[in-house]
Amino acid sequence: MMQIAILGFGVVGSGTAEVLEENKKLIAARCGEEVNVKYILDLREFPEHPLGDRVVHDIKIILNDPEVLLVAEMMGGSHPAYEFTRAALEAGKSVVTSNKEVVSTFGAELLELARANKVSYFFEASVGGGIPIIRPLQTDLASNEILAVSGILNGTTNFILTKMKNEGLDFATVLKEAQVLGYAEANPAADVEGLDAARKTVILAALSFGVLLDPNSIPTEGITGITAEHTAVAEAFGGAVKLIGHTEKIDGKVWAGVSPYLVPASNPVSHVDGVFNGILVDANMLGRALFYGAGAGKLPTASAVVADIIDILSNRANERKSPAWRIATADDVAPADKYVACRCFLIEGCPRCAEKAKAALKTEEVAMLDGKFAIVSAPMTASDADAALSSVGLASLWSLPVLD
Amino acid sequence: MMQIAILGFGVVGSGTAEVLEENKKLIAARCGEEVNVKYILDLREFPEHPLGDRVVHDIKIILNDPEVLLVAEMMGGSHPAYEFTRAALEAGKSVVTSNKEVVSTFGAELLELARANKVSYFFEASVGGGIPIIRPLQTDLASNEILAVSGILNGTTNFILTKMKNEGLDFATVLKEAQVLGYAEANPAADVEGLDAARKTVILAALSFGVLLDPNSIPTEGITGITAEHTAVAEAFGGAVKLIGHTEKIDGKVWAGVSPYLVPASNPVSHVDGVFNGILVDANMLGRALFYGAGAGKLPTASAVVADIIDILSNRANERKSPAWRIATADDVAPADKYVACRCFLIEGCPRCAEKAKAALKTEEVAMLDGKFAIVSAPMTASDADAALSSVGLASLWSLPVLD
Repeated sequence: MMQIAILGFGVVGSGTAEVLEENKKLIAARCGEEVNVKYILDLREFPEHPLGDRVVHDIKIILNDPEVLLVAEMMGGSHPAYEFTRAALEAGKSVVTSNKEVVSTFGAELLELARANKVSYFFEASVGGGIPIIRPLQTDLASNEILAVSGILNGTTNFILTKMKNEGLDFATVLKEAQVLGYAEANPAADVEGLDAARKTVILAALSFGVLLDPNSIPTEGITGITAEHTAVAEAFGGAVKLIGHTEKIDGKVWAGVSPYLVPASNPVSHVDGVFNGILVDANMLGRALFYGAGAGKLPTASAVVADIIDILSNRANERKSPAWRIATADDVAPADKYVACRCFLIEGCPRCAEKAKAALKTEEVAMLDGKFAIVSAPMTASDADAALSSVGLASLWSLPVLD
Repeated sequence: MMQIAILGFGVVGSGTAEVLEENKKLIAARCGEEVNVKYILDLREFPEHPLGDRVVHDIKIILNDPEVLLVAEMMGGSHPAYEFTRAALEAGKSVVTSNKEVVSTFGAELLELARANKVSYFFEASVGGGIPIIRPLQTDLASNEILAVSGILNGTTNFILTKMKNEGLDFATVLKEAQVLGYAEANPAADVEGLDAARKTVILAALSFGVLLDPNSIPTEGITGITAEHTAVAEAFGGAVKLIGHTEKIDGKVWAGVSPYLVPASNPVSHVDGVFNGILVDANMLGRALFYGAGAGKLPTASAVVADIIDILSNRANERKSPAWRIATADDVAPADKYVACRCFLIEGCPRCAEKAKAALKTEEVAMLDGKFAIVSAPMTASDADAALSSVGLASLWSLPVLD
């Protein structure tokens, strides 16, 4: 029997216990032995839960028990999750986690510590919930140079944007509904202002380019400013507004950011609706691949945590190489304004203004609306596009980058 | 330097050499050493190719060279690919392949042989071209019981069906165009009659359920009978006609088959267009995940071959467990007619007949057409649906199962 410990018995922690119990037999077959949750670390007691007798309140009990091979950290937040992860790795225990805050902030250091202690630090559940993306990027796409990763990484905002589109509603109205339904938290800032997606984007960038950016410093814009007008303009071009985390290399440096995009119908990401996530990878040999599924939720996320547990326990005898991430220096990061994309502008004006804008933005893609027009530029930086518009005496009401 | 051999220097074989050369540095970094193609086995000579001097015509040269760690088999067809694979595994060399014919026919035996010789037999490229699906099913979804796998597994037929839908054309017209464009072969039977998809379905079923069915014996129907009328009916329900390989368990036995389906717009597979493939996995904890990308083509397929090469060479020191497949006996296979699905029928008749059909098929989903109506039944077997229709004096012109 192989012993593990669960840190944090909230939604994902208790889901992990549920997956381990529900699929006990097949997990034992894959690991070669049964997997047993010896300890659950939480501040609370769970007297009614079948595993209630495993609850402890002192991490030292877990750290000092040589039987515990692996710790599954699902506490959320940076502290004490980070300190407990460090201590577990130093005690020679592998760690798996769903904690994107810890991975996106301390991932480089924790991977290094895992390597030094010849154990593993796995975090498939930290991006895309249950969707396989971390391991495919490291294994299935190992034959490729990654060119870009773009995705819908936050289910709450995608639920809101989908409902805004389907019902023609504004952000505030749908947010309230999402809160009532439990799809958005009482304090939805981390979701709707883009920080959750920024953390996940930074993890994807580190996997793709080996450099860990500061999730609080990448250009990040949420969906609080999105209105029914944005949605209507996107539909005029046959697309949808989606909150996209995007990373690519520009002149050898890493660019990463989060923003609402106009996603055309030809891009499979435009069809990723509701609470689902979809992550698009552009690779130099494979071309484009999409990974789609439940980006959050108790059992889907726990499914990814347990996949990591199985991977580690079934390969105990094997030496695993953790990826080496470097903390980004200023020199590693592409300036925010170097990002080149097609951009959709909404501009007040008549058909004659639209003709001027078409020439300035090097495009034929225009949709005339009531006293306004929407136009999608050729690929350019935001400042070049603004300069081009201003050179013909125009200014936009708003703009969105376009995902190609 | 790690030495490998390529068997078959056609599209995928030469693509594999190209990926190894193009991404040489990152592949060396991931393998820990440079990977060198020491031999290329082919009947032809390639005097103009940079690797032309590696060409040999006798497999024994490769088998007898202890420096060759791994053989990449991309010959196509069963023979002599099967015999050469056996010989390589017996000689203690790992084998990677894109050859779905060999994997779907001899996979159980070859995996067993790999295990006995403590080497690996990997075949990521045999299903879905460059799309990661084989490894994710074995690792990322290892925490799950697989409930069903359904997918667009053949790019040629999906190109044809997409064009038929977009342009309202019939099968024969589009096939000719696809042949001119090189998307369909001069003899397109294996694609358009479903055998290629059947082979891939059987591989997915074996990965999911551990039992290898005979690809020539599963119910297989291609797209040669699909007309503009099928497409129009699918669109009347907001969906598309897609050639789907599907596998699931029915009463503990494995069901697998290939057929054109009506795929509703709510299913992400309906948006997989052109030569792309999309594979949907239903798992008991994760729920639903979709893997989408280039299902064929030189570099995408070679990308998957080289990912397998890297996986094996970078883990040389580690013992890998091959999955154990059992050859299906009659008792493992669910009878073809036990398959339960919603079904779309086109029936000649008036609104009164449609009312009768609704009651018989337990549904409200009807679309009235010119002198005909299309109706989507509640989930039932094909024979139960036919019996229900005949009990109210109706018979259908044709029917398609519906992918839910």
